[in-house]
Amino acid sequence: MPFSHNSLFGLRELSAEEITFLLDEAKAFRQILERDIKKVPTLRWLTVVNLFYEPSTRTRISFELAEKRLSADVVNFSTSTSSVLKGESLRDTVANILAMKVDMVVIRHRNVGTPQYIARATNVPVINAGDGTNEHPTQALLDLFTIREKFGYFRGLRVVILGDIRHSRVARSDIWGLTKLGASVAICAPKTLLPPYPDVFGVEVYTDINKALAGANVVYVLRLQLERQYSGFVPSLREYRMFWGLTADRVKLLDPEHIIMHPGPMNRGVEIDPEVAYSSNAVILDQVTNGVAIRMAVIYTLANKIIS
Amino acid sequence: MPFSHNSLFGLRELSAEEITFLLDEAKAFRQILERDIKKVPTLRWLTVVNLFYEPSTRTRISFELAEKRLSADVVNFSTSTSSVLKGESLRDTVANILAMKVDMVVIRHRNVGTPQYIARATNVPVINAGDGTNEHPTQALLDLFTIREKFGYFRGLRVVILGDIRHSRVARSDIWGLTKLGASVAICAPKTLLPPYPDVFGVEVYTDINKALAGANVVYVLRLQLERQYSGFVPSLREYRMFWGLTADRVKLLDPEHIIMHPGPMNRGVEIDPEVAYSSNAVILDQVTNGVAIRMAVIYTLANKIIS
Amino acid sequence: MPFSHNSLFGLRELSAEEITFLLDEAKAFRQILERDIKKVPTLRWLTVVNLFYEPSTRTRISFELAEKRLSADVVNFSTSTSSVLKGESLRDTVANILAMKVDMVVIRHRNVGTPQYIARATNVPVINAGDGTNEHPTQALLDLFTIREKFGYFRGLRVVILGDIRHSRVARSDIWGLTKLGASVAICAPKTLLPPYPDVFGVEVYTDINKALAGANVVYVLRLQLERQYSGFVPSLREYRMFWGLTADRVKLLDPEHIIMHPGPMNRGVEIDPEVAYSSNAVILDQVTNGVAIRMAVIYTLANKIIS
Repeated sequence: MPFSHNSLFGLRELSAEEITFLLDEAKAFRQILERDIKKVPTLRWLTVVNLFYEPSTRTRISFELAEKRLSADVVNFSTSTSSVLKGESLRDTVANILAMKVDMVVIRHRNVGTPQYIARATNVPVINAGDGTNEHPTQALLDLFTIREKFGYFRGLRVVILGDIRHSRVARSDIWGLTKLGASVAICAPKTLLPPYPDVFGVEVYTDINKALAGANVVYVLRLQLERQYSGFVPSLREYRMFWGLTADRVKLLDPEHIIMHPGPMNRGVEIDPEVAYSSNAVILDQVTNGVAIRMAVIYTLANKIIS
Repeated sequence: MPFSHNSLFGLRELSAEEITFLLDEAKAFRQILERDIKKVPTLRWLTVVNLFYEPSTRTRISFELAEKRLSADVVNFSTSTSSVLKGESLRDTVANILAMKVDMVVIRHRNVGTPQYIARATNVPVINAGDGTNEHPTQALLDLFTIREKFGYFRGLRVVILGDIRHSRVARSDIWGLTKLGASVAICAPKTLLPPYPDVFGVEVYTDINKALAGANVVYVLRLQLERQYSGFVPSLREYRMFWGLTADRVKLLDPEHIIMHPGPMNRGVEIDPEVAYSSNAVILDQVTNGVAIRMAVIYTLANKIIS
Repeated sequence: MPFSHNSLFGLRELSAEEITFLLDEAKAFRQILERDIKKVPTLRWLTVVNLFYEPSTRTRISFELAEKRLSADVVNFSTSTSSVLKGESLRDTVANILAMKVDMVVIRHRNVGTPQYIARATNVPVINAGDGTNEHPTQALLDLFTIREKFGYFRGLRVVILGDIRHSRVARSDIWGLTKLGASVAICAPKTLLPPYPDVFGVEVYTDINKALAGANVVYVLRLQLERQYSGFVPSLREYRMFWGLTADRVKLLDPEHIIMHPGPMNRGVEIDPEVAYSSNAVILDQVTNGVAIRMAVIYTLANKIIS
């Protein structure tokens, strides 16, 4: 198998071949999702724990559906109903859950590097479902899957990532993935929302949205955390929309064959206008569907490494 | 199939034949619940999402058991752990969950008409699990099932609905169902808790409980929201019980063959006295059991419309 | 079957033979947990409700895994999302859930005697998952299982229970179990954390940890509720560790063949030092693994009494 890792921490550490391998695996699972019976008995032996230390709906449900459709047993753990209240350390919580003969960990945590920490401490496969502002690899994989589904290739595509790059683990994972697969990536944001050292990413950097969008094949609009307004990162939501929102007018600057992406949840009328979000070029719901297939592929690939 | 709808919004829109069809379907599922193995493999292909935007125990558990006993895959979503916190619109939340290849939506929401809104926006079957003060159709269906189970017929029965009719979606759904099936319905409450235009319902209206109860076959006691006391709707809980509570003395006014119903959760000693609630004429726990069977029948009926 | 009870309320009421029977049953399930497929189809007909009126992670997840691995259907109910908010009585909540054809209740509740109350009111098997400061029988059974696994016998073993005995249901259940099976039990705590009448337990009582530990085969370190510091039960966490914490130095007082136990979650550096908790003599994670097997055995034993 051309996938050499036992866990999935981020796209930064994967080769183009490994990323392509996961996208290929996901294709078969994507087809299963179109069947009447979407469940396969493949991983009946596997028990997965979903450890969500940050609130989440779509990512948690997407992982849960992926696990159930592989027939894995699922244990959900979220901080609201947990021993975290009793001050237990992350290491002890995870060690305890694994001692109940749980085979794989999916974790979202506000601290960068938590998935690696757990993998070292426990020796079971860990899937990063978002660690701080660092990476969100399954999101980027589903984005790559969706782009490949629409265009069939990456080399020669111009992808613009628009919005709060500074705080976005989605942007980081997407930049690593897209550049490895040969796409040309530009980022565009107000200066306050650009990463402090954008050079490390090997991308073009814009603050003028109209220049950034010119001729692009893919626009990836990031969610604006609305509280940024009050933290001084953006002047007002209205002004943000005026200068960096994806409006119907700005869509005209794109290549005619463009697609529009967003990781959700959207603030319609802030970073993206409703008529853009629901236009025929938007592939936002395809991203969601593909997310289940990608997560099935990642779980399946790592599970096979356990027993081989 | 004599059921022409793709969703279940309320009993107001159903014909007597359609209601009777669902009650007949539920009979088979009611028998399955008496078996040792209560699970049938019928809907292994179906994934249902339970979207509860209001807190609920019994209705959510009842739906969940109905779904699991039909072997459907279940995704639970409640507002406490969700993207609603992130300000996502209902339309986007539902569209996203459905994009993960979810086939059916069960929704409870404080706003009237939410189930219809979702059905229009998404094109999948929607089951109303309570929308504001409008309807709670599966509750009314289980009530009708329970009454038919005890009496075998509706025509000629006198049913008194007692309590906070004004704010009750259960009362509304029961009134539509009972009158369509030929029962004679009376409502009884303090004036503040009667609906503003009771005439539209085609029922007798009482404020004197003793007159209302005389000779009745069924008393349906509604739950009193205890906060009504402080909103000025009722003077005090003690006075409410004295004038509108179902006490053992008042039960003597009923037809000897009467039954006593309540949708739960009960405030024992307020709207209903404990010796009445636990008497042999009370069918309150039968209602709960029948609820699972009714929900199995509704899900099964709507699921068959998807694939036919 | 040498097990005469329909419910599991505590170890106080069980005979040595009955406890041994459950430990023997658990052995088979412990082996199943080492298999690739950890699920057995044995209790496909059973529906269990987990009623947790106190927050819990490990006990709830352990029960849930035990139930799922026996193929039972599981309904989870915790107070945060429930009708308890609507003021419903415990009796009514349980009666309602059981009316949905639920076959067995697992309950954790802050009030002593709640499991017995439910068993009397409902006539279904009830498993006590912790009632106030009274008992936590499945915890004690997994502790006994772990001790027997390491030593093979109880008679002649010296077991020291260290810490907040006064408020600990774990300590109570362990004392009943250990003394019935023939072990010699000592308790050690600051005076404020000893039970008011320690004589009833038939154990040695120490306030000097160094005397208590001398030559012991098993040290069972209890969790210190950190809020005890502010309630005046302990002077400061630092002082607590100095006088009653299990440090590496104190471990040297034990029998060389000793084991170290803790019910979790641990306060490392308070009641137990990290190098002790993670030493090779610590069997804390074995306890967790054995917990799933013990709960499978208890559920299986009580389920067989339903159908026989």
